[in-house]
Amino acid sequence: MSIRIGILGYGNLGRGVESAIRQNPDMELVAVFTRRNPENLKIRTEGVAVLNVADAPDYTDKIDVMILCGGSATDLPTQTPEYAKLFNVINSFDTHARIPEHFADVDKAAKEGGKVGIISLGWDPGMFSLNRMISTMILPEGNNYTFWGRGVSQGHSDAVRRIEGVIDARQYTVPVPEAVDKVRNGENPTFVTRDMHTREVFVVAEEGADKARIEKEIVEMPNYFADYNTTVTFISAEEMKANHSELPHGGFVIRSGVSGFDKEHKQIIEYNLKLDSNPEFTGSILVAYARAAYRLAAEGQTGCKTIFDIAPAYLSPLSGEELRAHLL
Amino acid sequence: MSIRIGILGYGNLGRGVESAIRQNPDMELVAVFTRRNPENLKIRTEGVAVLNVADAPDYTDKIDVMILCGGSATDLPTQTPEYAKLFNVINSFDTHARIPEHFADVDKAAKEGGKVGIISLGWDPGMFSLNRMISTMILPEGNNYTFWGRGVSQGHSDAVRRIEGVIDARQYTVPVPEAVDKVRNGENPTFVTRDMHTREVFVVAEEGADKARIEKEIVEMPNYFADYNTTVTFISAEEMKANHSELPHGGFVIRSGVSGFDKEHKQIIEYNLKLDSNPEFTGSILVAYARAAYRLAAEGQTGCKTIFDIAPAYLSPLSGEELRAHLL
Repeated sequence: MSIRIGILGYGNLGRGVESAIRQNPDMELVAVFTRRNPENLKIRTEGVAVLNVADAPDYTDKIDVMILCGGSATDLPTQTPEYAKLFNVINSFDTHARIPEHFADVDKAAKEGGKVGIISLGWDPGMFSLNRMISTMILPEGNNYTFWGRGVSQGHSDAVRRIEGVIDARQYTVPVPEAVDKVRNGENPTFVTRDMHTREVFVVAEEGADKARIEKEIVEMPNYFADYNTTVTFISAEEMKANHSELPHGGFVIRSGVSGFDKEHKQIIEYNLKLDSNPEFTGSILVAYARAAYRLAAEGQTGCKTIFDIAPAYLSPLSGEELRAHLL
Repeated sequence: MSIRIGILGYGNLGRGVESAIRQNPDMELVAVFTRRNPENLKIRTEGVAVLNVADAPDYTDKIDVMILCGGSATDLPTQTPEYAKLFNVINSFDTHARIPEHFADVDKAAKEGGKVGIISLGWDPGMFSLNRMISTMILPEGNNYTFWGRGVSQGHSDAVRRIEGVIDARQYTVPVPEAVDKVRNGENPTFVTRDMHTREVFVVAEEGADKARIEKEIVEMPNYFADYNTTVTFISAEEMKANHSELPHGGFVIRSGVSGFDKEHKQIIEYNLKLDSNPEFTGSILVAYARAAYRLAAEGQTGCKTIFDIAPAYLSPLSGEELRAHLL
C-alpha cells in the first residue's frame, strides 16, 4: 500500500514535491489542487488528477497526507488549519515570529479532525533549526552561526523587480569568506549584519532606464540591502536566461562550542547544504516528513507537530530492526 | 530538581561525561563507580562520592540516569543489561555487527526493570548515523560517504604499541583531500579503502630497536594498516608528550544525491565535526541523551532505544513552546 499524497498549490515548491514523490517508491501522487482553472494547469506526472481546491474535501478518503505548497504570507496561515480538519497536513510555514500562533491554530484544527499536522518544514526553518537545536544541546556553552548562500533569494529578487525601470532581477546571497574562516577556526567572533553576507544583484533594465538611479535604489533599500555590501551588475535578458534561470541555494549552520574542565577544548559542529535546486530540496524534506505524518496518524496521534517532535525513525519506511542493523 | 547522574567507569570517556555534566545546570553528578579501589581514584568534581561498582545497587533511589563509560568489547555487553534492570542507562556501544543482539539484551532487561536504556550514542555510531539516516530519507537517490579525521585513532595507536621495540605510538587517520573534493563536488566517485584515508603513525622506539623492522610491521599489519598508505615517523618521548598528548578527532558524513524530474540537480548535505577532544565530545552527547532518557522514563516509557527513536525535543530542558518560539 502506497502512501497517497495530495499537493495543494503548484508553484516551484509544488513541482519540487511532485518530483520528490517520484523518488520514493512507497509514495503515490493522487491529485494536485489549484486555485487556477485546472484545465490550464499541466503537471509532470501522467495520470494524476488536477483539480480545483474546492474539490479537495471529496478526497478525504483518497489522500493520506496533503502537502500544502502555498506561501507563508497569506496562504498557509488560513489554509493549514482549514485542511488540517480534513487531512494530515505538511507545510513549510517560515514566518518565524508567527510560528507560535500558527502552531496553536493548526493544533486545534488537527485535534478536531483527528489528524496530524507538521509545520515549518524545509531547510530554514527545518533542517537548520534541527541542527542548531541538537548542537546547542550537545555543546551548551558556545555560539551558533548561520550563513546562507551562495544562492538565490527570491524575496530579494522580487524586491528589485518592483523598482521602476527593472524588467528582471536575480539576487544572490553570498557568505563572506573571512567571516566563515573565523567561525570555522573557533574564534567565536561577534558580527554585524554586513560582516557575514554580501549581496550580488543582476538586473535587466528597460532600454534607456537610469541605471545609476536603479543601482542607488537597490543598495539603499532598507531591510533588504542597506545593511549589506551590495554589488549591482546590469546584464541583458539573454544573459539572465542563460546564466541565472536556476534556483540554487544552500548555507551552513555552525555551532562553535567549548568543552573540558577549563573549557580548554574547541568543538565545532557544521551542517552544510549545497543545493542546485532550493525548491526541490525543500520539496524532498516535505515528502520525507509526510511519511512521518502518515505513520504518526496510523498510531492514533493527533495535533500539530514540528521537526523537534518527530523521532527520526518515522522518516524511514524501514523497521526499527532494519534501521539498527544497517544504518546505526 | 536536578537530573541526578551516575558515571560507571572512569577512563577518558568517564572524565568527558563528568566535564559535560558541569556545563548543564539541570544536571548533577551524584557518584562515580569504579572497579578499581575507590580510594585510589581522584575525580575532578568536589564532594562527589567515588564508590566501588558493588555499591551501585544501593543508589537506585539516588540516581536518575547511569551513564556507562566502559568499553564495547567486554564491559558494555554485560554491564548494560545488568544495570538496565536497576537504572535508566546510556552507553556508547560501538561494535556495529553486535548492535541487534545488544539491543535485544538491553530491551529485555530495561523492560523487566521498568527503565529506559539508550545505546550506541556518540558521534559514530550516533550523530553520524543520525545524519546519514535523515539525509538518506531526504535524498533517497544518492550515495553516503563517511570520512574520519584528522584525528587520533586509539585502536590503531594501541595496535602499534603492541609491536616489539615500541614504547609509545600515536596514529592519526587523515582524509585524502582529493577524495573529499570529488565527493563535495557531487562526482559520486567509487572508492577503495586506500583512496579515502591515509594513516600517519608517530612512534617512540626503544633505544637500539630495529626501526626498519618496526616500520615494516606497521605498514603491513592486516586490517589496521595494510589497506592504507601509511607513513611512520620516529620521534622522541619528549616530542610525543609535547605534540601528541591530546585526543583530537572529527570527520564528516556527506550525502550526495540528486533531485528533479530528470535527476538533473545535485544536492549535497554535509555534517562535519572538528573536535579538540574526542572523549569530551562523546561525553557531551551521552549527557544530552541522558536528559532524554530521564524525560522518557518520567513519561512511563520503558525498554531500549537508539538515537533514531528519540524525538529531538527530548534533548532540551526547554518546553515545546519555548523551543518553537526561539529555536525553530
